Amino acid sequence: MLTHTHVRTIEWGDCDPAGIVFHPRYLAYFDHATCLLFAKAGLDLATLQARFAVIGYPVVDLRSRFLAPCRFGDEVRIETRIAEFRRSSFDVHHVLHRSEAVAVEASVTRVWAGWHPDDPQRLQGRPVPEEVREALGPG
Amino acid sequence: MLTHTHVRTIEWGDCDPAGIVFHPRYLAYFDHATCLLFAKAGLDLATLQARFAVIGYPVVDLRSRFLAPCRFGDEVRIETRIAEFRRSSFDVHHVLHRSEAVAVEASVTRVWAGWHPDDPQRLQGRPVPEEVREALGPG
Amino acid sequence: MLTHTHVRTIEWGDCDPAGIVFHPRYLAYFDHATCLLFAKAGLDLATLQARFAVIGYPVVDLRSRFLAPCRFGDEVRIETRIAEFRRSSFDVHHVLHRSEAVAVEASVTRVWAGWHPDDPQRLQGRPVPEEVREALGPG
Amino acid sequence: MLTHTHVRTIEWGDCDPAGIVFHPRYLAYFDHATCLLFAKAGLDLATLQARFAVIGYPVVDLRSRFLAPCRFGDEVRIETRIAEFRRSSFDVHHVLHRSEAVAVEASVTRVWAGWHPDDPQRLQGRPVPEEVREALGPG
Repeated sequence: MLTHTHVRTIEWGDCDPAGIVFHPRYLAYFDHATCLLFAKAGLDLATLQARFAVIGYPVVDLRSRFLAPCRFGDEVRIETRIAEFRRSSFDVHHVLHRSEAVAVEASVTRVWAGWHPDDPQRLQGRPVPEEVREALGPG
Repeated sequence: MLTHTHVRTIEWGDCDPAGIVFHPRYLAYFDHATCLLFAKAGLDLATLQARFAVIGYPVVDLRSRFLAPCRFGDEVRIETRIAEFRRSSFDVHHVLHRSEAVAVEASVTRVWAGWHPDDPQRLQGRPVPEEVREALGPG
Repeated sequence: MLTHTHVRTIEWGDCDPAGIVFHPRYLAYFDHATCLLFAKAGLDLATLQARFAVIGYPVVDLRSRFLAPCRFGDEVRIETRIAEFRRSSFDVHHVLHRSEAVAVEASVTRVWAGWHPDDPQRLQGRPVPEEVREALGPG
Repeated sequence: MLTHTHVRTIEWGDCDPAGIVFHPRYLAYFDHATCLLFAKAGLDLATLQARFAVIGYPVVDLRSRFLAPCRFGDEVRIETRIAEFRRSSFDVHHVLHRSEAVAVEASVTRVWAGWHPDDPQRLQGRPVPEEVREALGPG
């Protein structure tokens, strides 16, 4: 199973008046981490859109736990992997470490989606291609 | 039980290249909605900090579902209420409607927190004051 | 000359660890204010794109001065008007007041732009339509 | 004169429905770049606050030009240096390159500031310490 790990530095503008990361920013970090995981597998978004007629993999459900606050200047390590593929959706698991401790965890369900053929305002799930499962998936 | 409802317009900068709201922005909307709910009860953050020696009510857990995409210019209605108080934490429930449909839902657990007396880098839960429960709580 | 004025409340997530608005957020406020000005004139972005084959009015130059800090919970009043139209660009002027004082000012040059016909990655300026000048412009 | 150069990847959440970076995000990039420049000189913000009784170096004036759009996935190179020190303020110059072309430029005036002794809501400029000028400055 492919895992992507990267380090990022907490920015001043990511933090709130309590001096800690404003929690929606962690979810933006995880969104980027998902893109990096796909890119590592050779499946950056431009490739996906060109090859599979999808707009991407929008989030439909997420759960996140915030265990310890991070601050401006902290270097954090984010580990990202796909925990499970289903027919037209998948779960991405993220763990953000500060020093050796887990500071934030998230499980994010994304759908493999194009625009609905009858209504270009609605999203429609599509079966996740076998090629994508193989590039990213468990064993 | 106090409920706060407000309308906001989706901004261009809240949306991503797929033309829909970047999902972490919804969680920023809900964060603001929580502040508005407290302010409606006369408990804006400055008041809380002065009266109760807390830094605020940081998020420790959240679950959110994204049912339908919203776009730039959409007017959305956000309903916010506290679903449950526990000893030193509480759950805030948010529903975001676009037209008559529910587009996004979230349940956010927050802790009534000050800095830890032995370690000013760590947060410490405190008992939610009775006055706060009464101002915001269920029946 | 059409002017748009609106009030917004500074959000917790707009502020930084110094407790004041993170300055790029003011520029997001002004971006939204420009959209509101156009919408007030009946020229929301969907209308512009459908009628004039432009993608919008991206920013090419801006100058902003930050005179007094704003904080979480402040109600600020933003006045927006178009100061000048040129052939394919225009200047938008914004003034943000907190109480009676000017806290932030900006002058933002935007170009009336479509994608370049020979290179869909590049923007190309187009003449600002007379209808737009009349709806928004000075006297 | 100390220069700091770093590379960052444009994130999905930094881009707008036109598929290009939402311009306030560039200013957030430059804010972070300024912090990195100071940190490179051994003057991270915690050090500054502890040693010099300032809250930091808030922005009072900025000018930015946006010459070419950047998109999701682009790797951009940001060069940052201090162009001039004055008594209690200084100008930071940023150039953002995509491939070999300059995409964005900015000149940002910041003030060396603490809270006003008579009014903790107001900022007050302080003389920039000689140690800071030497660590970062021209020749």
